[in-house]
Amino acid sequence: MDNEKQLIDLRNEQEVDHPEEACGIFGIWAPGTTVALHTYFALVSLQHRGQESAGMVLAQDKSLSLHKGQGLVTDVFQNSSLLHEIGQGAIGHVRYTSYKKSPLENSQPLLLQYKMGQLALAHNGNLINAEQLRRDLEARGSIFQSDIDLEVMAHLISRSNFETVETAVTEAAQRVQGGYAMVFLTQDKLLAIRDPNGLRPLCLGKIDQHYVVASESCALDAINAQFIREIRPGEGVIIDDKGLRSFQAAPAGRHSFCAFEFIYFARPDSNFYDHNVHAIRRVLGKKLAEESHVEADLVIGVPDSSISAAIGYAEACDLPYEMGLIKNRYLGRTFIKPSPEARTTAVRMKLNPIEHIVQGKRVILVDDSIVRGTTTKHIIRLLKEVGAKEVHVRITSPPYSFPCPYGIDTATRGELIAANNSIEEIRQTIQADSLHYLKQETLEDIFKKNNIPICSACFDADYPVRLPELTIEKG
Amino acid sequence: MDNEKQLIDLRNEQEVDHPEEACGIFGIWAPGTTVALHTYFALVSLQHRGQESAGMVLAQDKSLSLHKGQGLVTDVFQNSSLLHEIGQGAIGHVRYTSYKKSPLENSQPLLLQYKMGQLALAHNGNLINAEQLRRDLEARGSIFQSDIDLEVMAHLISRSNFETVETAVTEAAQRVQGGYAMVFLTQDKLLAIRDPNGLRPLCLGKIDQHYVVASESCALDAINAQFIREIRPGEGVIIDDKGLRSFQAAPAGRHSFCAFEFIYFARPDSNFYDHNVHAIRRVLGKKLAEESHVEADLVIGVPDSSISAAIGYAEACDLPYEMGLIKNRYLGRTFIKPSPEARTTAVRMKLNPIEHIVQGKRVILVDDSIVRGTTTKHIIRLLKEVGAKEVHVRITSPPYSFPCPYGIDTATRGELIAANNSIEEIRQTIQADSLHYLKQETLEDIFKKNNIPICSACFDADYPVRLPELTIEKG
Amino acid sequence: MDNEKQLIDLRNEQEVDHPEEACGIFGIWAPGTTVALHTYFALVSLQHRGQESAGMVLAQDKSLSLHKGQGLVTDVFQNSSLLHEIGQGAIGHVRYTSYKKSPLENSQPLLLQYKMGQLALAHNGNLINAEQLRRDLEARGSIFQSDIDLEVMAHLISRSNFETVETAVTEAAQRVQGGYAMVFLTQDKLLAIRDPNGLRPLCLGKIDQHYVVASESCALDAINAQFIREIRPGEGVIIDDKGLRSFQAAPAGRHSFCAFEFIYFARPDSNFYDHNVHAIRRVLGKKLAEESHVEADLVIGVPDSSISAAIGYAEACDLPYEMGLIKNRYLGRTFIKPSPEARTTAVRMKLNPIEHIVQGKRVILVDDSIVRGTTTKHIIRLLKEVGAKEVHVRITSPPYSFPCPYGIDTATRGELIAANNSIEEIRQTIQADSLHYLKQETLEDIFKKNNIPICSACFDADYPVRLPELTIEKG
Amino acid sequence: MDNEKQLIDLRNEQEVDHPEEACGIFGIWAPGTTVALHTYFALVSLQHRGQESAGMVLAQDKSLSLHKGQGLVTDVFQNSSLLHEIGQGAIGHVRYTSYKKSPLENSQPLLLQYKMGQLALAHNGNLINAEQLRRDLEARGSIFQSDIDLEVMAHLISRSNFETVETAVTEAAQRVQGGYAMVFLTQDKLLAIRDPNGLRPLCLGKIDQHYVVASESCALDAINAQFIREIRPGEGVIIDDKGLRSFQAAPAGRHSFCAFEFIYFARPDSNFYDHNVHAIRRVLGKKLAEESHVEADLVIGVPDSSISAAIGYAEACDLPYEMGLIKNRYLGRTFIKPSPEARTTAVRMKLNPIEHIVQGKRVILVDDSIVRGTTTKHIIRLLKEVGAKEVHVRITSPPYSFPCPYGIDTATRGELIAANNSIEEIRQTIQADSLHYLKQETLEDIFKKNNIPICSACFDADYPVRLPELTIEKG
Repeated sequence: MDNEKQLIDLRNEQEVDHPEEACGIFGIWAPGTTVALHTYFALVSLQHRGQESAGMVLAQDKSLSLHKGQGLVTDVFQNSSLLHEIGQGAIGHVRYTSYKKSPLENSQPLLLQYKMGQLALAHNGNLINAEQLRRDLEARGSIFQSDIDLEVMAHLISRSNFETVETAVTEAAQRVQGGYAMVFLTQDKLLAIRDPNGLRPLCLGKIDQHYVVASESCALDAINAQFIREIRPGEGVIIDDKGLRSFQAAPAGRHSFCAFEFIYFARPDSNFYDHNVHAIRRVLGKKLAEESHVEADLVIGVPDSSISAAIGYAEACDLPYEMGLIKNRYLGRTFIKPSPEARTTAVRMKLNPIEHIVQGKRVILVDDSIVRGTTTKHIIRLLKEVGAKEVHVRITSPPYSFPCPYGIDTATRGELIAANNSIEEIRQTIQADSLHYLKQETLEDIFKKNNIPICSACFDADYPVRLPELTIEKG
Repeated sequence: MDNEKQLIDLRNEQEVDHPEEACGIFGIWAPGTTVALHTYFALVSLQHRGQESAGMVLAQDKSLSLHKGQGLVTDVFQNSSLLHEIGQGAIGHVRYTSYKKSPLENSQPLLLQYKMGQLALAHNGNLINAEQLRRDLEARGSIFQSDIDLEVMAHLISRSNFETVETAVTEAAQRVQGGYAMVFLTQDKLLAIRDPNGLRPLCLGKIDQHYVVASESCALDAINAQFIREIRPGEGVIIDDKGLRSFQAAPAGRHSFCAFEFIYFARPDSNFYDHNVHAIRRVLGKKLAEESHVEADLVIGVPDSSISAAIGYAEACDLPYEMGLIKNRYLGRTFIKPSPEARTTAVRMKLNPIEHIVQGKRVILVDDSIVRGTTTKHIIRLLKEVGAKEVHVRITSPPYSFPCPYGIDTATRGELIAANNSIEEIRQTIQADSLHYLKQETLEDIFKKNNIPICSACFDADYPVRLPELTIEKG
Repeated sequence: MDNEKQLIDLRNEQEVDHPEEACGIFGIWAPGTTVALHTYFALVSLQHRGQESAGMVLAQDKSLSLHKGQGLVTDVFQNSSLLHEIGQGAIGHVRYTSYKKSPLENSQPLLLQYKMGQLALAHNGNLINAEQLRRDLEARGSIFQSDIDLEVMAHLISRSNFETVETAVTEAAQRVQGGYAMVFLTQDKLLAIRDPNGLRPLCLGKIDQHYVVASESCALDAINAQFIREIRPGEGVIIDDKGLRSFQAAPAGRHSFCAFEFIYFARPDSNFYDHNVHAIRRVLGKKLAEESHVEADLVIGVPDSSISAAIGYAEACDLPYEMGLIKNRYLGRTFIKPSPEARTTAVRMKLNPIEHIVQGKRVILVDDSIVRGTTTKHIIRLLKEVGAKEVHVRITSPPYSFPCPYGIDTATRGELIAANNSIEEIRQTIQADSLHYLKQETLEDIFKKNNIPICSACFDADYPVRLPELTIEKG
Repeated sequence: MDNEKQLIDLRNEQEVDHPEEACGIFGIWAPGTTVALHTYFALVSLQHRGQESAGMVLAQDKSLSLHKGQGLVTDVFQNSSLLHEIGQGAIGHVRYTSYKKSPLENSQPLLLQYKMGQLALAHNGNLINAEQLRRDLEARGSIFQSDIDLEVMAHLISRSNFETVETAVTEAAQRVQGGYAMVFLTQDKLLAIRDPNGLRPLCLGKIDQHYVVASESCALDAINAQFIREIRPGEGVIIDDKGLRSFQAAPAGRHSFCAFEFIYFARPDSNFYDHNVHAIRRVLGKKLAEESHVEADLVIGVPDSSISAAIGYAEACDLPYEMGLIKNRYLGRTFIKPSPEARTTAVRMKLNPIEHIVQGKRVILVDDSIVRGTTTKHIIRLLKEVGAKEVHVRITSPPYSFPCPYGIDTATRGELIAANNSIEEIRQTIQADSLHYLKQETLEDIFKKNNIPICSACFDADYPVRLPELTIEKG
């Protein structure tokens, strides 16, 4: 118990200028093995998707047990003897560091008891009709313990009259709308489903003769599992002692994978749709260079997510790629009193420009997106303070103009700088010498050529699934 | 996270030979004051009723927040800035140290969201029809997060169609059966109810112009509140900005206050029915002496609960009252590997006989009850090892022969030594030189004379409220 | 790290009106056994001598390791796998809760490396020439890491030219003056010494064929060790694989055992000089009754230390002994903002009077000492508030008028109420109806008859060992 | 307290194949400012130099206080109210994660009391004559509390007969030999010294009118301090309320800055001798490419330290620079049971190859050094497993053949693969398709051209300062 009330977490002071994602999930059914250790390694490799809390539910001896806490996976499970225990299955979850309230109650997995016994569940994504379903469920007497929209799913399942978990999950899946990947664990099986539009990622892997599911393929690599395939839009899989079965949990809609998984969220070594994230980012950078020529001396990327694109950009225009900004790897949680001096120091502590590299130079700064514009402005100022002659900003995505209701937290439209300003106005606000966003047609062309069906709603409001009034909450 | 799996908690190695009680509760509605600090002080003074976990829910600015943890009140809230905050109301709970599983999930208060907003609740006692109600609720789609039977109450309230919390509570109270005291907190009021037989204690107090409720009057003393009266069987009270209102939550049954609150559970400085606990224990000891004469040199009590009775006993037979057993006040939680050597040492570490006092003496050992007989046997052996010539055991209650379904955890009837053995057989088992239990008629006579209506079911199976098949669980 | 700076520890708000003692020690040499577990049990049973910090040094495989922390023994070593390890020997220490600064640096044992290898040491008591020796050692280039005067001893040993630890300890022992018991551990032996006047307690015990030393005999009971004898004034013992050898570490002076070990500090089940602490307290109470008759209705003691004396007092004047004050056993550390309201509540939370017992009664209140007078005054007010008609205070020791330089922390003479006021003035200050201290001749007579050689310096300034200018510090 | 005994820390499983460095230091004298907050920010930016423990000593109100703990700076000082306090000065330290024992006792700063009052000190480096000095000091009666060789320095100072700290430090500095940077804090000044050969780094900065010293210039950036200059070989500086004074603490020797600070240890944004670390690494990579041509498809670097060189290498041979290995940023401390399976997984979890990038490709792998060869071998195997056709290893430094006694922990010569094997033998061991080390003449040429005087002893045994028998320990 501490009085963090008046303190700010410096680590968050910068993140808020990127799209914010919600969570990574993992599931395994491998009786007789150290399922918790596998889950642990997988969660550590998904840690970039959420650093706020970590948890797992373990199926052992016909019983489920929940273990979760705030902080990094390695902190929560440090010295845990759990990791060496043998079990049947497990699901795990890492939760995004939100700058809003995020107490332990809102961490996952959820573990509950209902008429069919114990059920654990975890998800990544957002249900756009969660609030409406919740109001309806409450009216019928349901009790909620958290603000997570996944809890709606739990109630739909527990109120289903079907007799197996899979039919109950199917029934529930046909009630909820949005972008999501979910894992469910009972004492004798693992289930996983993906939303009808394939908005959020979920893939299937195999380790020895056992199956696993994970948000990203890098989690499969971490446990030496073999990548099998992606879970299809609306598909569910049941994994138990009899093996793997697939079913259609909800009718598939237009396939619309979140473009930002490629652009920003995923680890560079993950693959989606047979394409490597780093490689796609490199192409984005290259194409961006081709359409936004400017005289300059060098190219730098904002670490870590824009490094791949910056390398591609530099190559395309035959300029040196440079490390102009160094990111501190050890920031951890830093609660301090919010003085202007402390904030300024904090930005510098997090991203330090290399004076020797940029002094007197015309710099091309590659970044993946601009949400509010505050951090980009900060970085440009830092670069100019150490002597950059010009700073030309190049963004590897089109202007982020519309809020995402499928699990990306960008608050209201009013806060999106591109929703309310022309590109020239943005350039002036961030004080760049020039500013260019990747053209949407270029972006779409790249993904189309590679057979990757993307959602572009945040650029053009072409929402693959929508409600009369969109509710934008993060799960 | 630690591997306590194979370890035992030495602190519990002895407690299991006494009736085990469940929890202490407190509630306050006092807008503009440090309600959390009051709750903290009250819980510390109720700590003897439960050391496993402590928690409180605080109403502040139209919102409820939950704060709980495992361990003592002073550990859970150490350095908590919460204690100095101003709020409208609060409820608090301390939970009994069970030797069975008792994770944080089973700690209280519960805080939940339902159709009418936020609701917090906490209780002491047991609902005998909880399992049946739970099965019914689950069949209708309710989800449970804990093993606490209070959660049944929460679901009954959330499924009620009445429009105010008090009517919903009343409706629910008429569905549940058992012995209980409950507190409820919403953003604008405090409610409290007591079971129809008045089995579990609950009293009302006043601090300045504000009202509080507590399991025992010692919690009122702790915050300098004035004792007003006991909550009546089946009564409910609503405390809000308009003051105090009483209502009948459930029809009152035969008034049957748990005799063991006087005999063992309560703090000696608490009062029930206008009678001081210490004073009643003294009378029990005195009457016990009168009906069980034996030649002896001195009288000792098993600390702490039997000291009052031992003083009364000694006085009645004009023998010196002595401290023959010293209790270690600092045991805390001691997890060690369960070797026979460790267990033996542990008993001695907890209760040490004074050789100088008992050597060569005929000792009268006063205790309040014998549940399994194991500890009594241990104590007698300790006394004889340091030279006691004779040990005459005197118990201030009749044989504990029937399990209690109203919140006292004595496991199954098979484990009760008095349920399966004659007094002479018990004497032989515990290796006492003589053994006498207070006669039930004497006990009843004492309480009757003092106008205290007691439940004697654990002595004679005269259950004030019962189901076809009793379920005995602790809440 | 927390900001306790502006907070007060309520637990200490009352202790300061009793003499404050410093620490308990234990040592064992028993190769092949769980020496850490034995030390743990012994320290738990010595916990009443100090609750601020706990520590032990373990000799294992020819190497010493240090383990210590702040808080109770059971907190510091909770879940420690150490307890189950096999070793050769160990020493342990519990440190008193001082309301002054007491960081971890000042906790014990100390573990250091010097020319002869590793040395661990711990003590109870105070060296009156520590400051002067320290100044001298510093002038010769010694570095100090703590404020503990034991560190002086360590430097004297490390600077000795003798070739064995025992001769180095002997040489050092002849340089220091004061009241102390010390244990030393090397990789192949245990040493223990007691001050030349036998001011501080230290006894020898045997467990199987192995030897142990402890501050009090209750620690021997805790591990089922057999009491052998007390360490003699100035005696040292060496315990190693060859067994036990005794040597004279410093010439014995006038034997002067601290009377307050009997009156207040020790656990009632401990024995010194073949006399049980509880039994002596009972006699003190009895004799006090004989010399201070007053008309009254009942006798109560201030828990816990004065209960034995109150029982004796009541018996002697044939009045009922009663529990008029109930002590909360679960206070722990309670840091709160220091408001007058919080303090008042805190006293009540700690000691609650039973109104039913004292209302309308003439009460004899037995206590063991009055240092500053503040708590006694508080208790009398509490008793009167709940209706006591008269409160007659009876103290089982003579007026505490002179500061103790041998390990009891009573600050300066100016703070001792008896040093500056007549008994009548004290009575008025504390608002008692009458006040009587045990006469010093009575006290001395009791101890003399029982062949217990006591130090009475705090009553009459007859210091058994003194320096030109006394320095009064606690170690 | 936990049983980490049989567990391994996965985080360390790979580091051991690089030179291991010891610690980062910082000092500030800035009365009236938040000196602890400045120290905190500086230590966070020096965190790459040591993650085992962090500590600071704060000078406030004429008194020094010590605050340290195990783990990252942000963990040790999380929520610490200290950070917001005003003081006069502070020194701070981060300690390297050694896979050997490194308890809290061996963390820094040290705080001690001696004849001149309080003294705090911290260092980076190693004293080659520490053991001999320690034996000598112990023979004269000094006590040691840790294994840190800095403690020798403390004793030399405390035994000095000079009257000021600076003369005592000077006297001591002339006794010790090795590579080091040290900071000292008293209640009224800060001192800093650097070894006579300038082996370890230390620079001077200015923030407003106040002076600071730090191991690397990135710590100055973190607090917006201005870089002034490097501390010269053998130079000492005194910083107090009167400002800055310089003195010669020990006669300067041959200037020999550790080449590995440029090659591996320092943060890319730090500068030494007016040269940026990243820029020099880039040149090393470029020159390496020029002298080691091989037909290949792409260039990758081992993150993070070899990225700069890989970029330079790729540019020089006009091949694409690629991210072929992704490093997990969130490993933290991961204690697990050491099974071969767990170790293999651990390596993969830490460094994951991107199959899409390297499959079917001839890869040039740039790394900064090979110490034992184990990790390089692992990485090559990982790359081949995901399909790399050829792996050509290029090392940006000459073979590491001789142990470093000046603060780099490479254990014994026997463990250095280059000390005992030809380059071809190493190539076979690590199973590379080709292996090339930067030629020593090339390395020396690069540094000479840039006027950077380096120590090359680990390549050619040309030790700038040596003892008859070198002792190789880390401090």
